[in-house]
Amino acid sequence: MARLVMKFGGTSVADLSRIRNVARHVKREVDAGNEVAVVVSAMAGATNQLVAWTREASPMHDAREYDAIVASGEQVTAGLLAIVLQSMGISARSWLGWQIPIRTDGAHGAARIAQIDSTILDERFAQGQVAVVAGFQGIGPDNRITTLGRGGSDTSAVALAAAVKAERCDIYTDVDGVYTTDPRVVSQARRLDRIAFEEMLELASLGAKVMQVRSVEMAMVHGVRTFVRSSFDDPDAPQNGAGGLPPGTLICGEEEIVEQQVVTGIAFTKDEAKITLRHVADKPGVAAAIFGPLAEANINVDMIIQNISEDGKFTDMTFTVTAADYDRAMQVVKEIEGMEIGAVQGSTDVVKVSVVGIGMRSHAGVAADAFRALAQKGINIQAITTSEIKVSILIDSAYTELAVRTLHSLYGLDKA
Amino acid sequence: MARLVMKFGGTSVADLSRIRNVARHVKREVDAGNEVAVVVSAMAGATNQLVAWTREASPMHDAREYDAIVASGEQVTAGLLAIVLQSMGISARSWLGWQIPIRTDGAHGAARIAQIDSTILDERFAQGQVAVVAGFQGIGPDNRITTLGRGGSDTSAVALAAAVKAERCDIYTDVDGVYTTDPRVVSQARRLDRIAFEEMLELASLGAKVMQVRSVEMAMVHGVRTFVRSSFDDPDAPQNGAGGLPPGTLICGEEEIVEQQVVTGIAFTKDEAKITLRHVADKPGVAAAIFGPLAEANINVDMIIQNISEDGKFTDMTFTVTAADYDRAMQVVKEIEGMEIGAVQGSTDVVKVSVVGIGMRSHAGVAADAFRALAQKGINIQAITTSEIKVSILIDSAYTELAVRTLHSLYGLDKA
Repeated sequence: MARLVMKFGGTSVADLSRIRNVARHVKREVDAGNEVAVVVSAMAGATNQLVAWTREASPMHDAREYDAIVASGEQVTAGLLAIVLQSMGISARSWLGWQIPIRTDGAHGAARIAQIDSTILDERFAQGQVAVVAGFQGIGPDNRITTLGRGGSDTSAVALAAAVKAERCDIYTDVDGVYTTDPRVVSQARRLDRIAFEEMLELASLGAKVMQVRSVEMAMVHGVRTFVRSSFDDPDAPQNGAGGLPPGTLICGEEEIVEQQVVTGIAFTKDEAKITLRHVADKPGVAAAIFGPLAEANINVDMIIQNISEDGKFTDMTFTVTAADYDRAMQVVKEIEGMEIGAVQGSTDVVKVSVVGIGMRSHAGVAADAFRALAQKGINIQAITTSEIKVSILIDSAYTELAVRTLHSLYGLDKA
Repeated sequence: MARLVMKFGGTSVADLSRIRNVARHVKREVDAGNEVAVVVSAMAGATNQLVAWTREASPMHDAREYDAIVASGEQVTAGLLAIVLQSMGISARSWLGWQIPIRTDGAHGAARIAQIDSTILDERFAQGQVAVVAGFQGIGPDNRITTLGRGGSDTSAVALAAAVKAERCDIYTDVDGVYTTDPRVVSQARRLDRIAFEEMLELASLGAKVMQVRSVEMAMVHGVRTFVRSSFDDPDAPQNGAGGLPPGTLICGEEEIVEQQVVTGIAFTKDEAKITLRHVADKPGVAAAIFGPLAEANINVDMIIQNISEDGKFTDMTFTVTAADYDRAMQVVKEIEGMEIGAVQGSTDVVKVSVVGIGMRSHAGVAADAFRALAQKGINIQAITTSEIKVSILIDSAYTELAVRTLHSLYGLDKA
């Protein structure tokens, strides 16, 4: 017997037949003797409709009203799943954020969970009742409904798992786990059986859109073992029986990962843009003069490369922003006053490829291996940033697939 | 300055453009210096969709889950109206049943309001804030959302008006008031400026479907002056200005009705059916033997006529039920055991015409006038029931229009 939190997203509860499928997954866990809490999102499309209405009501709407409106989507799904579970002979009831309560801060529209009282759920678990919890929502200090931001049901699930001390938080989604890289680009990509929280965090923020970044952070902080699996598999398939687990990826602490690879995955993000300022005066205060206005415009700068100038007077400065911010960023740098800039050049035909792995901490030369392998393929590196467990490289987007495949093979990630 | 409760039904908030129209009605009252609470229904169609989903989830669903699901419709409308009001520069916020709180009993799906705490709304009124209240819902003793049954937003509005001691409860609907009879049948029908609670109760239950019966009962008990008006009129029409009231009907206590008519209106219900048992033994216990099984089958019997038998041995017994119950009722009486019944006859081609007026209490001969007028037109009366303020007559449905027009003229209800 274990205590489990199971989370199902919008496509997994898109209609009544999908909700019935979810109920069969829940029944399997209940029949196995587990104590179960289920966290559900709104039916696919429901949230978009509600958001569209609030925008139509007023583009500048009160975030507290937005929350009350949008949270109704999860309220509906939770009630429907509770009804279906009951019809299958399972004791179940729905819980809204304010009923448990799931207390959050007052940042309506992007609230953070402050505290979940597990008292009432513990009582219900003891009675054998399944808790069906509306995800994405809580109650703020003002006694009003708050929402956690888009994708917040992942965070609800992980926070609930931490509060009730669940053995595992199962995230049912439309993919069957986390891969070494995008299988659509590299046919040799493998599903990882296990991945460390830190690695998942780097991969999630780099585009492996399996879980919301904030929910992974929370899982890491509270040590919640999180299992990513497909909601489209057969709920009664043999591998699910008797404590078995289907294909999927366990996100866990490093200590649970027995055979550590040096590199766990290769991520890449295509929505990058680079901007180069030519012939900039090479003197103190130049960086501040450029990046101050960008920060004020709420433009997030990722990589920065400044070459040492040849003559000690002028240099070139390159940095990257997201493609979405590109036009605004170009505008901002062109309007920087009182600075000598030879020319401003930019392009969006760049891609950032990242090599991620906690093994890098204890292995020297990982970055150098990457640079050498790319050079052998004739791929020019435009910029580099590194962190403790990640090396990111900016290249011409034409070489994306080649670079990712090359690095995937280099670090032994290809299928056996 | 006055304190007002304004209620808008589903067709009045069917989409954003209708909600904007509602907001203009609210703005007019706020600009006139009134303290305003608005009660809203779900957007037209929303409740039906939610109910359909709960049925699809399971025909025998948990009423508590049903309530949590269905109450979400009003939650959405309340938030949207609050946003639109704010965009028009009006201080406003939405309130859900559990936030005020509106406490009800535990009869999920058909709850009754037990108590509304007005403390927090009084504070907000003092700050000049409009309260937008989700109708149809409250919170039960189990801390779960309850709903008041279909059409319950009228009840929410009247109960709220009683709790905050509002000067008036304005029911905005798709008709512009209560008429002396159905204008589609009698072109001479007049809109009533005022009608007593008791009269409205008789007219509402007889088919003048302007307000939910229970809400009229509540208005009567608490003496809430209730004004029925159209939500389709121009919010800024001249007659609305400076304390004026547009066309509509005030439902109020008798003492407010200066020029009392003997008869206020003629109602009629077409969904009636009559059943006659011929040659029934005329002995004690016969009525119980017939109507006991009908009551057990949850069939509501309205009129009952038993003629005095000629020979003291056998009699005929006639009664009416709703047309919807007709088939079941026929089945029940045919299966009554141990009784001599000559024959069971029935038909659904009957209509009940009712003459309503509190003036009847002090005027004799009202019923006799009706019988005489109908006889003069050759209309045969099949059954009669009377109450203190109502005479109901069962006739052949072919004579419906003739009978209603005749009685409408007889009591001086035709347009001047």
